[in-house]
Amino acid sequence: MNDIELGRRKLDWARSHMPIHSELRRIHGARHPFAGLVVAVGSHIEAKTGVFIETLAAAGAEVVFTASVAATTQDDVVAALNAQPGITGYARRGVSAEESVALHERTVAHKPNLILDDAAELTALLVHRFPEHVAELLGMCEQTATGVQRLHAMERQGLITFPAYAVNDTPMKHDFDNVHGTGESALANLALATNLLLAGKRVVVAGFGYCGQGVAQKAKGWGARVTVTEVDPRKALRAHMLGFDVAPMAQAVRQAEVIITTTGNRDVLRREHFEAMPDGVVLANAGHFHVEIDTGALAEMAAASREVRPGITEHRLADGRRINVVAGAELVNLAAPTAMGHPVEVMDQTFAMQFMAAVHLLEHRASLGAAVYPVPDEVDRQVAQIKLRTLGLRIDTLTDDQRRYQDSWRSEDIIK
Amino acid sequence: MNDIELGRRKLDWARSHMPIHSELRRIHGARHPFAGLVVAVGSHIEAKTGVFIETLAAAGAEVVFTASVAATTQDDVVAALNAQPGITGYARRGVSAEESVALHERTVAHKPNLILDDAAELTALLVHRFPEHVAELLGMCEQTATGVQRLHAMERQGLITFPAYAVNDTPMKHDFDNVHGTGESALANLALATNLLLAGKRVVVAGFGYCGQGVAQKAKGWGARVTVTEVDPRKALRAHMLGFDVAPMAQAVRQAEVIITTTGNRDVLRREHFEAMPDGVVLANAGHFHVEIDTGALAEMAAASREVRPGITEHRLADGRRINVVAGAELVNLAAPTAMGHPVEVMDQTFAMQFMAAVHLLEHRASLGAAVYPVPDEVDRQVAQIKLRTLGLRIDTLTDDQRRYQDSWRSEDIIK
Amino acid sequence: MNDIELGRRKLDWARSHMPIHSELRRIHGARHPFAGLVVAVGSHIEAKTGVFIETLAAAGAEVVFTASVAATTQDDVVAALNAQPGITGYARRGVSAEESVALHERTVAHKPNLILDDAAELTALLVHRFPEHVAELLGMCEQTATGVQRLHAMERQGLITFPAYAVNDTPMKHDFDNVHGTGESALANLALATNLLLAGKRVVVAGFGYCGQGVAQKAKGWGARVTVTEVDPRKALRAHMLGFDVAPMAQAVRQAEVIITTTGNRDVLRREHFEAMPDGVVLANAGHFHVEIDTGALAEMAAASREVRPGITEHRLADGRRINVVAGAELVNLAAPTAMGHPVEVMDQTFAMQFMAAVHLLEHRASLGAAVYPVPDEVDRQVAQIKLRTLGLRIDTLTDDQRRYQDSWRSEDIIK
Amino acid sequence: MNDIELGRRKLDWARSHMPIHSELRRIHGARHPFAGLVVAVGSHIEAKTGVFIETLAAAGAEVVFTASVAATTQDDVVAALNAQPGITGYARRGVSAEESVALHERTVAHKPNLILDDAAELTALLVHRFPEHVAELLGMCEQTATGVQRLHAMERQGLITFPAYAVNDTPMKHDFDNVHGTGESALANLALATNLLLAGKRVVVAGFGYCGQGVAQKAKGWGARVTVTEVDPRKALRAHMLGFDVAPMAQAVRQAEVIITTTGNRDVLRREHFEAMPDGVVLANAGHFHVEIDTGALAEMAAASREVRPGITEHRLADGRRINVVAGAELVNLAAPTAMGHPVEVMDQTFAMQFMAAVHLLEHRASLGAAVYPVPDEVDRQVAQIKLRTLGLRIDTLTDDQRRYQDSWRSEDIIK
Repeated sequence: MNDIELGRRKLDWARSHMPIHSELRRIHGARHPFAGLVVAVGSHIEAKTGVFIETLAAAGAEVVFTASVAATTQDDVVAALNAQPGITGYARRGVSAEESVALHERTVAHKPNLILDDAAELTALLVHRFPEHVAELLGMCEQTATGVQRLHAMERQGLITFPAYAVNDTPMKHDFDNVHGTGESALANLALATNLLLAGKRVVVAGFGYCGQGVAQKAKGWGARVTVTEVDPRKALRAHMLGFDVAPMAQAVRQAEVIITTTGNRDVLRREHFEAMPDGVVLANAGHFHVEIDTGALAEMAAASREVRPGITEHRLADGRRINVVAGAELVNLAAPTAMGHPVEVMDQTFAMQFMAAVHLLEHRASLGAAVYPVPDEVDRQVAQIKLRTLGLRIDTLTDDQRRYQDSWRSEDIIK
Repeated sequence: MNDIELGRRKLDWARSHMPIHSELRRIHGARHPFAGLVVAVGSHIEAKTGVFIETLAAAGAEVVFTASVAATTQDDVVAALNAQPGITGYARRGVSAEESVALHERTVAHKPNLILDDAAELTALLVHRFPEHVAELLGMCEQTATGVQRLHAMERQGLITFPAYAVNDTPMKHDFDNVHGTGESALANLALATNLLLAGKRVVVAGFGYCGQGVAQKAKGWGARVTVTEVDPRKALRAHMLGFDVAPMAQAVRQAEVIITTTGNRDVLRREHFEAMPDGVVLANAGHFHVEIDTGALAEMAAASREVRPGITEHRLADGRRINVVAGAELVNLAAPTAMGHPVEVMDQTFAMQFMAAVHLLEHRASLGAAVYPVPDEVDRQVAQIKLRTLGLRIDTLTDDQRRYQDSWRSEDIIK
Repeated sequence: MNDIELGRRKLDWARSHMPIHSELRRIHGARHPFAGLVVAVGSHIEAKTGVFIETLAAAGAEVVFTASVAATTQDDVVAALNAQPGITGYARRGVSAEESVALHERTVAHKPNLILDDAAELTALLVHRFPEHVAELLGMCEQTATGVQRLHAMERQGLITFPAYAVNDTPMKHDFDNVHGTGESALANLALATNLLLAGKRVVVAGFGYCGQGVAQKAKGWGARVTVTEVDPRKALRAHMLGFDVAPMAQAVRQAEVIITTTGNRDVLRREHFEAMPDGVVLANAGHFHVEIDTGALAEMAAASREVRPGITEHRLADGRRINVVAGAELVNLAAPTAMGHPVEVMDQTFAMQFMAAVHLLEHRASLGAAVYPVPDEVDRQVAQIKLRTLGLRIDTLTDDQRRYQDSWRSEDIIK
Repeated sequence: MNDIELGRRKLDWARSHMPIHSELRRIHGARHPFAGLVVAVGSHIEAKTGVFIETLAAAGAEVVFTASVAATTQDDVVAALNAQPGITGYARRGVSAEESVALHERTVAHKPNLILDDAAELTALLVHRFPEHVAELLGMCEQTATGVQRLHAMERQGLITFPAYAVNDTPMKHDFDNVHGTGESALANLALATNLLLAGKRVVVAGFGYCGQGVAQKAKGWGARVTVTEVDPRKALRAHMLGFDVAPMAQAVRQAEVIITTTGNRDVLRREHFEAMPDGVVLANAGHFHVEIDTGALAEMAAASREVRPGITEHRLADGRRINVVAGAELVNLAAPTAMGHPVEVMDQTFAMQFMAAVHLLEHRASLGAAVYPVPDEVDRQVAQIKLRTLGLRIDTLTDDQRRYQDSWRSEDIIK
C-alpha cells in the first residue's frame, strides 16, 4: 500500500470516530463560512488533525497546514491530505528545528486570513518575523493553555492587533481534552513505555490545572498514591480535599516513583530536585513543552546516560542513583514510542471548538477589537448540543414555571 | 446544665474545629474593621454560625442575627450568643412562617450597614418592605447559589442600589462548601434517616452544579449507580465523561431507588414524575428550598400519607405504590432527624469568605457601584492562604525564571 | 401511640425493605423446617432482627431471643415481638452487665435446640455455665468474625461438641455485611456524631479484613487520605496495591485526624499510641467489642475527661492534647447517638444466611460431626439466587458447549 | 547492536524492576534447591520470564523453556538466554501452530523433573503425548486460572499422577497479577490500539473473577460506565454492590461501545451477541485464549473484513454495522501492537510464587500425593514478606496480649 492509501485508511478510522465533525460537514458543507479565506492550521499532523483540515476545506477554506511538533508528524497522513483539493501542507516527520521553522515560514507565507493555532506558534512567528502579513489576519483561535498564556504575554506587550479567541479556556475544551484526553493518554503511554504498574506507586503530579487533575484522578483510579504539587493555594486545597497528598516539590520527590509534569512552566523539575530523587524514579512530561523538566541540567549531573528501553533514557548519577526520563521529556502522549496523541473523540470535540470559534469570530469580526477574548458561551453551548446529539443523550428543559422561578426574588415567589 | 451553658459547650466544640476563624480573630480582633457598623447576619442559627457571629463581634461589629430557616435554630446557641456583648439575636426554633417574618423584620429594623445573607432573605426583605432603610446599607455578601440567582433577578429589575458580593461564586466557597459539605452531609443524613444502604442503589441526582457534583461523586464513591439529570448540555456532558448515566428526569425516575434534588429550581420532581416512580422510592432535597419537590402535588395524588419513620413521610398512591419523602423535602442535611447542617470545617471556610469579602467591600466601597460583583480573586486567595496555614500544608512558589517564562512569548524563549 | 404499636411500625418499615425474608416466609412458611424446635437468637434487638425472629417463628420455630448488647435494644420492638405467638424475648435497653448476663441465662434456660448467635455469646455461655444443656443443642450458626474466631478458640480446647456453621465466613455475608454494611454505617455515624468532614482528612483504618476494606474504600470514596495498619503481610500488600498508605500504628497515629479500628482484637490503640497522637484526633471503633481501644489506659492518662458533644468524650492529656472517643469505643454504628445499626438490606441478607444455614444444618445433622464448619457453598448460592431475584437482576447461564469446555484439558479442545 | 546484546539490555531493565527475584537469587543462589533437576518453563518468552529463568538457573536448575504463545516471543531475549549456561530454549516468534507444537515437544523431550507451566500446556502435552516421561516428573506448578481449571478437568479423569500446585489460586498471585496486572495492561493496550477514550464509554466486562474485577474497577476509575456479565450469582451480586450494572450478555451488548472478555471460557461473545451489537463496537479479550470470542462465526457473518488500524480488524456485517476486533481476539495485553505483557512488578511477584511453590513442592514431595493442591499458605506469606521488604513497608505484629486474646472465648476474657 502506498503512503497516500495508508494515510487515507488512517483518516477513515479517525473520521468514523469523529461524529461532531460529521455534523459540521453536514451543516457547513453547504454554507461555506470560510469561502475565499486562507486558513492556516498548526497542530500535530496526524489523522485526527487531518479530519479537521478536511472539514475546514469542506466548509470552503483554502487550508494551509504545518506541524507544531515535527517529531509527531505522520507522513502518510500528510500525503493523503496533500492529495485533496484546497489543502496544502508543509510537514515532514523528524525534521530539524531549522527545517521546522522553514516549514512554518512557508506556511505563514500564504498570508493567512485565519490562524487556528497550537501553542500560538504560527501567530508568534507571524507577529515576530512577518509583521507585514499581520494586516491580512482577520483573527486567530488558540487551543492550548500554553498558547493562551503566551497570547496574554503578547497582549501585555501590545502585539495583539487582531481578535484572538482563547479556545482552550472553554469548558467544552478543557473539561474534556485536558482532563480526559491528557489524563488517559499520558498514563496509557507511560504504562506501556515503562512496562510498569501504576497500582501502589507513589506518583507525583506537578500542577493541578485541568491536565493535572485528569492525570491525578486517573492515576488514583488505578490505585496510585498521588502527591500533587502546586503554586496556587486554591488548586492545592482543591487537591487536598479530593484526597490527594499536597507537598512542595522538594519534599515530594523524595518518595516519588513516578513524576509527571503538567504545569506549562519551565524547570518544574530541576537540579535541586534531581539531587533528592530516589534511585529508579521515572520522569515524564504531560505539559506542552519539554522545558518542564530541566533535562540539560540532568544530563550535566549524570555520570552516564543511555537508552535503556525504546523511549527511556537512564541518567546514572555519580552516586549510582538512576533517573529515567520518558521520551526525552517531550509530551509523553505524543512522543512516547507507543504514542497516538489524544484519543479521537477528544480531538473531535477540541477541533470542533476551534472550527465553531472561527466561524463565530468571522461572523462577529466587525464588533471585535484587537484583544484576546474568551470564546462566547453560545459557541461552547452549540458544540455541546451537537456532542449530546451524537451521543444520543437527551436532557431536560426548563418548564415555563421554572424559567419564571429563576427570575423571581420575592420570598413569597421563591418559597411558595 | 442551663441553656446558656449548653450553647456555650456547642460553641466550644465548633470553635475548636474552626481554625480559620481563630486566625481571623487574631488578625482582625485588634484592627476592628467593622467598628461602628451594624452587621446583620441571616443564616441557620447553630454553633458554627455562632462562632462566625462571635468573630464579627470580636472584629468590632454590632451584630444582629436571625434565622434563615426556623426549623434548624438551636435555642441554646441563641441564648449563649445573646449573653455576649455586641450581639443581638432574633431566632426561635420552630416558629411559624409569620413569626419568622416578624423576627426578620425586627432584625432589619436595626438598619444594618452590612448584610451577610443566606439565600438573600434579609436583603430581599429590606428592599421589598423597608425601602426607607436601604440608604443605610453599605453593601451585602451572599453565600448561596440560590441567593446569588435571586440577586441577579433583582438586579435585572433595577433593585440593587448597593454593592453585593456573590460569595457563593468563589472557588473557596463552592469547591468546598457545595461539593464536600453538601455532598457528605446530605448522604450521611439520608443514610441514617432511612437506614438504607447506598451500595448498589440506583440513585438519581437532579442537577450537576457544585452541590450535584458532590452528591453524585460521593454516592458513587460508596457504590451507588448514579444517574444525573440536567438542563445544561455542558454540565450533562461533564457528568457523562465522569462515568455517570445521564437521562431526562421522566426517564430516570423509572428505575430510581433514591432521588436527590440539588438544582435551586422548583418542581424538579412533579406530578408527571411521581406517576412514573417505582414502589418504595425515597426522595430527598439537597437544594436550598423545599420547592424542588412538588410535595403539594404528591400529597394530592396520595390515597394516604403517614410518617413511617421519624422524618420520613410515606405517600401511598391509589395503585399501591409508596413514595417516601425525607424531612418533608426540606434541605436534608439540615432538617433530617439526625441533621447537624454542614460539617464544621466547611462552615469555617464559608463564613471566613463572608467575613473577608465584607472587609474587602468596606475597604473598597468608594470604588464599588450598585451591582452584583464577583468577589475579587485576592480575597479568595487570602482565605486559601490562611486555610493552607491552618492545615500545615506547604506549597511551591514560582522561581524568578518561571515568572519570566510566564511573560514570554517568542519561540526561542518558550522552547529554549 | 403505645410501645407495641411503635414497635410494629418499625417492624413494618424493616419488613418492607427485607425482600429476601419475604421470600423465606413464602418458601418456608408452609414447610416449617423448625417445627418443634427451640431456636435461641442472640443479636442486637431492633427492627431488622425482629423481622428475622418473626420469620423463624413463621417457619415453625419456638423462638427465644436476647440482646447481645444491651445498649442497642429497642424496647418497643421487644414489646411488639413479645406480643406475637411463638416468640419470647428477654431484653431491656441499657441494663447493667450483670442484668444482661441474667437475661442471657434466662434465654439459655429454654434449652435451645439451635443457637443463631452473635459473637458466640450464647454458645459460650451455654458451654461455660450450662454444660448440662449442651446435649439438647443440635447445632449453632455464627454471624460475626469475632464469634467465628472465638469458636475456633473453643474448638482448639475441645469444647465444640456439636456442629457449628461459620456463617460470617460466607461470601454472601462478609462481602456485603462487613464491607458495605459496616463501611457505610460506621462512616455515616462518625460523620454525624462529630459533624466533621471526611474529605481531605487523614484517616487511619486499623485492619484490612472485610470490615476494614469497606471502611477504607468508602472513606477514600469521600476524599479521605487513608492509612491502613495490618499485622498480615498479604492484607497489607493488598491495601498498598489499592492505593492506601500502609504503616505500623505507632507511625500512623502521628498524622492521624481520625482513627477507626476494625480488627476484632484488643488494645489496637493503646498507651504508646495515645502518647503519639496529635491534638484533636477522633477515635472510633467499628470492630465488635470496645476492647479494640484501651479506653481504660486513656482515662488514666487524661488530666480531665468530659462529654463535649452527645456521644463524644474528650480526654485532655496533661500536655493539653485532646483525644476524642466516639461512643465510648463501642461499635460506632450501633452506639453513636444517631446509630441505627446496619442498613436494612444488609441484615436482610445476613439473617437470611443464618436462616438458610440453620435449615441446612438441620437437614444434614446426621452427617455432621462436632466441629466448626464452613457453610456449604450451595447455601450461599441459594441466598444469592433469592437476592438476585428480589433485585430483578438477571445473569447468564453456561451453554452446553461452555460446560464441556470447562471439563476439557487437551490442547485441541481448549484452543480449538 | 546484535540480538544477544539487545536481549541483554531488555533483561537488565526487567531485572532492575524485579526486586523479589534479586532476593530469591540472594537466598537460593547458594542453597541451590533445584540442583540436578531439569526444570521446564512454559510461558510468554520475554524479558520478565527471562529473569525468572535466570533465577531458576542461579538456584541450580537445568532450565529448558518454550513459548506458551508464539506470537509474543521476543527472539532477542531467547538469544540472550540461550547464551547463558544451564539454559536451553525452544522458541521463535510467529511460528505456525505445528511448529509451535514441535518446539513444545522438544522441550518435553528433556524429561523434565519439574514443570512451571502456563495454562497447563506442557503438562497436558506430557500426559497426552509422552506418557512414558511422566514418571520423571516430580511435580508441577501452574500460574493461570485457565490452567488450574484444566488441571482439575484432568484430575477428574484420573490423569494427575503427580503433585500439582495451583499457584494461580494464591492471594499473592491473583490479587496482584490478575487484578492489577491484567487490569492495567489490558486497558492501556486497548486505549492505544484504538486511540479511543475510556471516559464516558459504555464498557461491558464479561466475567467478574479477579481479572474481570481488575478490568472493571480500573475502567470505572477512568470514567467508563461498566456493565458486568456473570454466570455466578455471587460474583454478579458483588459487582452490583460495587456500583456496576449487571445484565445478561444478550442485553448488555445492545448499548456496548467496548466489550472485554475475562472468563476463561469459550464463545462468551457469539453469533447471537454479534447480531445485537451496535455499529462501531470494539471487542477485546483479556482472558487466556482467543476462544472467548467466536471470531469464526463473526468472520462468517461479515460481508467484508479488513485491518483498519494495526491490530484492529473491522468486520462489516450485511446491514452495514461494523464490529472491530482487537488483536484477533488474542490476549490484548500480549498481542496488541503496543503490547508488553504484564507490568514488570507483577511478573516479579507471580514468578516468585512459582519459584517458591516449586521449592516447597520439592521439599515436601515425600508427603504429597497425586493431586492438584492449593499452595500452602506459608509459601504465600513468605513471598509477601519478601515483597513487603523490597517495598520498604513495615507493618504491625501482635502483642502477647493480642495473641492470647485470639485464643480466648470466655465472655470475661473477650469483653474484659
